[in-house]
Amino acid sequence: MDAISNVDETTSFFDSAPLLKDADNISNKLTQFIDHNSFLSGSGGPRRVVCVTSGGTTVPLEQRCVRYIDNFSSGHRGATSTEYFLKSGYSVVFLYRRGTCQPYCRALPDDPLLECFEFTDDFCIQVQESHSEAVKRAIREHHATVSGGFLLKLPFTTIFEYLQILRLIATSMKIIGANGMFYLAAAVSDFYVPWESMAVHKIQSASGPLDMRLAQVPKMLSILRKEWAPTAFYVSFKLETDKEILLEKADTSLKRYKMHAVVANELSTRKELVILVTNTAKVSVYRENHNSDVESPLIKLLVDKHSTFINNT
Amino acid sequence: MDAISNVDETTSFFDSAPLLKDADNISNKLTQFIDHNSFLSGSGGPRRVVCVTSGGTTVPLEQRCVRYIDNFSSGHRGATSTEYFLKSGYSVVFLYRRGTCQPYCRALPDDPLLECFEFTDDFCIQVQESHSEAVKRAIREHHATVSGGFLLKLPFTTIFEYLQILRLIATSMKIIGANGMFYLAAAVSDFYVPWESMAVHKIQSASGPLDMRLAQVPKMLSILRKEWAPTAFYVSFKLETDKEILLEKADTSLKRYKMHAVVANELSTRKELVILVTNTAKVSVYRENHNSDVESPLIKLLVDKHSTFINNT
Repeated sequence: MDAISNVDETTSFFDSAPLLKDADNISNKLTQFIDHNSFLSGSGGPRRVVCVTSGGTTVPLEQRCVRYIDNFSSGHRGATSTEYFLKSGYSVVFLYRRGTCQPYCRALPDDPLLECFEFTDDFCIQVQESHSEAVKRAIREHHATVSGGFLLKLPFTTIFEYLQILRLIATSMKIIGANGMFYLAAAVSDFYVPWESMAVHKIQSASGPLDMRLAQVPKMLSILRKEWAPTAFYVSFKLETDKEILLEKADTSLKRYKMHAVVANELSTRKELVILVTNTAKVSVYRENHNSDVESPLIKLLVDKHSTFINNT
Repeated sequence: MDAISNVDETTSFFDSAPLLKDADNISNKLTQFIDHNSFLSGSGGPRRVVCVTSGGTTVPLEQRCVRYIDNFSSGHRGATSTEYFLKSGYSVVFLYRRGTCQPYCRALPDDPLLECFEFTDDFCIQVQESHSEAVKRAIREHHATVSGGFLLKLPFTTIFEYLQILRLIATSMKIIGANGMFYLAAAVSDFYVPWESMAVHKIQSASGPLDMRLAQVPKMLSILRKEWAPTAFYVSFKLETDKEILLEKADTSLKRYKMHAVVANELSTRKELVILVTNTAKVSVYRENHNSDVESPLIKLLVDKHSTFINNT
């Protein structure tokens, strides 16, 4: 696809998308967050900021949304990576799908309030002993990073919300230049139903099988990289279920969108192993053992690459 | 659709569905739950049991599931109704979509652990004053009903899991006959991709728009009603965004599936008003005021109709 038609498609995607609610409020939060962090110093320079995207986007099939197509992602990768970025001295804008995994909450059960707490005889609630450490850690770390101004959490559901908020983030991160990083772990829909051609009412099921034609979502990575925040450091993700085509696709992505690194992962082994694809090498990154996270060595590697990138600009 | 082809379609749906994990465990839980409740007495007879279904089902588009179609439902209706059924002396099998609203948790924010608790100076966690009553109520009521054996919660995600678990529930509720009720509030997919014709790997986006043909899910309501648990009391739901066709569709549903009542609701007003459609009348049910639930008068009406039904059998 040539650059001009992509710009046209992108313009038409945004023009036809439903208006983002709360856009002013999100912009204000972002400006404050970036301002606050630009006065802080990190290791050997100003504090760095990474935008971590996490979870899957949805594509509505009807304007008054009853049905939609969802891209599955637990958000585990994004939440875990956020913890390691914070530990490495980065501040994080966490753009996440509502309801997915949150930083510091990985060790908790699905429904922590109902599963971790119990009622005592004197009408108090207490944490069950077995969950006590995990619950304390989640609440302590979460409050410390949010109230310290190191973690800004912004939720999305649809692809329309995701891309509009991502544009706001990119625009506000532009001023920190090479100190900014985009770590694009969200599972973004490839196909969508353009808003204006969408059924207004619920699709009826009485009349036989349902035929659907979905359009491709314009390749926003290209616009983000070139227009919205061109001087940042870029890491994107490639997830496939078929490992034969994975590395080839990661490589194409690296070149086509001028990423600085692409993290290639296969659905079935993604918690143990990822391959970091750059212009110069393909590095297999393994977790140290069953109790450790592959994100720990991965973020370490990326922080080093980001340092080199900053020193070279 | 005639009865025979529906039976064939249903058989083929179940034969081709991926095997339900944990089926034995679910069966055992159900047997214990029904056993336990059949020794308890309710108002003027044995304790009644209602199966409340809640939340939306998903339809995978790929066998190694990355993308799926989701039917939106917060699960608010099912969770609220469960509270009122318990209050009316029913025991409840709560068949719910993972991650949706839970009984007694409506007053809580999305992420209660991170939003309701705070860390104190002496390394303890405490509930924030503003959320204190809601949190206490959620934990107290939840534990009391679950540990008392009045509430059994069973989660699902896909349409395949939903229908297989529903069959297990119906089979175990058969022995309580007219004392059983099905309150089918879940948003069940109308269309699906048959498992054997599903793409094994992630659908690739490189080659233009995506055309999809989805098959209709067989009308299980019919089989449930006639075969699985034929002597129970049945309430189904009809949700539409277009109110013109709502009552007509509710009426068709009532007759075609021999429901005892159909709750008709329109997406935009569903929290204030529902219409209870039966063979003899269409009754508008309103909530009393802004702070009350439409489920309160609705469940009261249904409990009365269920009593009449029991007395007549």
